[in-house]
Amino acid sequence: MAKPVRSLPGLSWGAEGTREVSRALPEEWPVALVYDGSTQAVMMASPQDLADFALGFSLSEGIIGKPSDIKSLEVVEHGEGTECRMWLAEDRGEALTARRRAMMGPVGCGLCGIDSLAEAARSVPQVGPGPRFTSAEVASAAELLRDRQPLHDRTRAVHAAGFLRPGEGLLAAREDVGRHNALDKLIGALAGQGIDPGAGAFVMTSRLSVELVQKAAQVGCTALIAVSAPTAHAVRLAEGAGLTLAAFARAGGFDIYAHAERIGEGETHVA
Amino acid sequence: MAKPVRSLPGLSWGAEGTREVSRALPEEWPVALVYDGSTQAVMMASPQDLADFALGFSLSEGIIGKPSDIKSLEVVEHGEGTECRMWLAEDRGEALTARRRAMMGPVGCGLCGIDSLAEAARSVPQVGPGPRFTSAEVASAAELLRDRQPLHDRTRAVHAAGFLRPGEGLLAAREDVGRHNALDKLIGALAGQGIDPGAGAFVMTSRLSVELVQKAAQVGCTALIAVSAPTAHAVRLAEGAGLTLAAFARAGGFDIYAHAERIGEGETHVA
Repeated sequence: MAKPVRSLPGLSWGAEGTREVSRALPEEWPVALVYDGSTQAVMMASPQDLADFALGFSLSEGIIGKPSDIKSLEVVEHGEGTECRMWLAEDRGEALTARRRAMMGPVGCGLCGIDSLAEAARSVPQVGPGPRFTSAEVASAAELLRDRQPLHDRTRAVHAAGFLRPGEGLLAAREDVGRHNALDKLIGALAGQGIDPGAGAFVMTSRLSVELVQKAAQVGCTALIAVSAPTAHAVRLAEGAGLTLAAFARAGGFDIYAHAERIGEGETHVA
Repeated sequence: MAKPVRSLPGLSWGAEGTREVSRALPEEWPVALVYDGSTQAVMMASPQDLADFALGFSLSEGIIGKPSDIKSLEVVEHGEGTECRMWLAEDRGEALTARRRAMMGPVGCGLCGIDSLAEAARSVPQVGPGPRFTSAEVASAAELLRDRQPLHDRTRAVHAAGFLRPGEGLLAAREDVGRHNALDKLIGALAGQGIDPGAGAFVMTSRLSVELVQKAAQVGCTALIAVSAPTAHAVRLAEGAGLTLAAFARAGGFDIYAHAERIGEGETHVA
């Protein structure tokens, strides 16, 4: 089986000259997401928690609406990558086939650029009211996540996503070389445990991109907390979708860029 | 025109309580790469140097072999994104259409997962002998690049790619919210100036992924220097393609994980 960490030899050059070293490097492994015998995407991912990944990707990309829309899921490793083979409930399979046909579109119509931009800028689902968080909870979220990153401890080079439920701390965490994959694995893990993403916040070690906001809103999560910066577009999207966006969350504090009403000690509750 | 940086209001929570702030955040902007009237990809990118981006993406993805394969390039901004409209020389356009048809494949053949994994794991072109670098040059590359990151200076949240030619320092640098985009912009900028990527090294502020090695080898660059870690798969790929891979390049030193023979003060030259 492919392992998420590989020890590889290197030559280290420094003040004391050159010496041979062995470093733990993160693996980056092709994972094909295959629905009803047809590949939807090949992602480069850390080869662990791949069943969570397949389930989470299916949910966050809107390919399925609930876990039971996947009739069977088989993770099959080959020499050069891993296939996540899923078979969908009949109506979901038909919807995916129709979506694929629409995406392929007519070649050479001369308008596809504009169509594709409109598709990329599509609005995301409105999220519900969701829970409130104390400021202290948001400020300490990144530290809580830091304690749940064994792969990062070994490699210093992978991302993590965690799920924070108010008053309960971090319920789950997942890691991956890619931050979007880490979130998809987390979403799959929550779905597997029957935990509603709408009852807490996703905590990310990374920047907050448009894609992370889209994935969070798609599964009904109402708050994103990140260690690093959001992009301006991610802020606009979160504002529009009703999502709380906290960034630069480190020991001493954090910034809020969208829907601050869910954070703080006040009595006010989100309607 | 879309700007690469936006000042947005935030609420900052810290030891002194809550205060209103304004932060410079990086924009993330949909850019459609359109060939002969048909979209190949929509990338989320920093909206600057988009003509470089279009040219570099076309080269690093093997859509064209040389800049003159693009007969015309027009950058058209819409409200929701920017189109890079390219028209290809006739034989290149036909090759791309054939490639697209092959990629779409038959739906539901039951084998696409394996085919797609083989495609993802495809070997990259062998690179030529390339130049040598001194250890000091490699060790200082990241600092040289650090002086060429105005967008990062403002936002602290974007990547950069630079081109280091032995004995001459950094000839060019480009920035983007995405590291792959930063490299594509650099590749386009070099092509526009008639600089051969095979005569130097690409310097990256990021980790070294498989995709960065593929892009470098595709345009004939023989060395990659990065501030952070490589993935294990990127090391294997670089080893096989003959590419030098230096990582953890910071003030005091660096590690070499593949083809160390191009780095050092020795008399030996690569055959």
